[in-house]
Amino acid sequence: MTMMTANNGVNVQALLDAREALKGAPEAAKFTWRASCKWQNGTHSSTNVEGFFGLGEEQKHKTESSFSADHPEIFASEDKGITPVEYLLVGLASCLTAGVAAVAQNRGIQLRSVESKVAGKMDIRGILGIDSDVRNGYDDIKVTFTIDADASKADIEAIVAQSQKRSAVYDVITNPVNVTVEVV
Amino acid sequence: MTMMTANNGVNVQALLDAREALKGAPEAAKFTWRASCKWQNGTHSSTNVEGFFGLGEEQKHKTESSFSADHPEIFASEDKGITPVEYLLVGLASCLTAGVAAVAQNRGIQLRSVESKVAGKMDIRGILGIDSDVRNGYDDIKVTFTIDADASKADIEAIVAQSQKRSAVYDVITNPVNVTVEVV
Repeated sequence: MTMMTANNGVNVQALLDAREALKGAPEAAKFTWRASCKWQNGTHSSTNVEGFFGLGEEQKHKTESSFSADHPEIFASEDKGITPVEYLLVGLASCLTAGVAAVAQNRGIQLRSVESKVAGKMDIRGILGIDSDVRNGYDDIKVTFTIDADASKADIEAIVAQSQKRSAVYDVITNPVNVTVEVV
Repeated sequence: MTMMTANNGVNVQALLDAREALKGAPEAAKFTWRASCKWQNGTHSSTNVEGFFGLGEEQKHKTESSFSADHPEIFASEDKGITPVEYLLVGLASCLTAGVAAVAQNRGIQLRSVESKVAGKMDIRGILGIDSDVRNGYDDIKVTFTIDADASKADIEAIVAQSQKRSAVYDVITNPVNVTVEVV
């Protein structure tokens, strides 16, 4: 008999080692993630992401990434990129998905495919200032996973629940974060 | 004498017209923004954005966009894209920037440049499950604008404050949103 080992491409041992190492080094666990945005024209902007701070020093992604954001043509804009609110959905889906892969790996469960659809409902009377009782942001976001894995439905649901419990983006969206905006 | 008119590339009249039109048509103001995510390998995923629903019918961006997300090499991942939490910063910066352009246009103020730096602090002992008192997401996000415009510092600060007041992403990050996650 051959013992098959799950391989989802996540180095769980490295993460467990990091957990042990950072238990005794709380300063190294303090990260700062950064982005730089430049207005282009109209509602179109470009935001670059490259460096961040963590493990006590400056870090860099392998490459600098640039993201265009804009409003769609139905808002009389040029649609030169997805909207800012759609970037939140990208962050949420990708965070939960990375978590699913990591948790499945930690539990020895082989994933074959993980797909999700995210839908965020928003009443734009908020941002247009029509009704002060209508919020600007999403009222409600729904994430629906379709997962093919060597596991029961109950085990798959437990993996998704654990991913949710440890997701940084899920936390930011479901709980308040302090944001300070200043002009220099 | 020549009367110079501010032109920031934002069609404010169309937005004001939309506000009037949607006052009497609350159903048309109900939008759903969407994204579809596919796990690739490890912590790497690709998320596509194309269609959305609004003004009572299905809408489409001019092009479909795809976004890679991953974890960096210091987390034993392959860094095939920015992290999910950085996508939140892209959304925040671009939302506030579009708002600055729209508000400045509405106030007749010509912008020459709008740049911002966003920095989000996170203690990764949260996501690693080291300390249950440490949250998973950002503790604190700071946005710093540098704006060159035909206006006083006080007027510029007022534009940024109004953008913040009407920003969908600022609202989502600073206030709780209900998120439902399910497996089908």
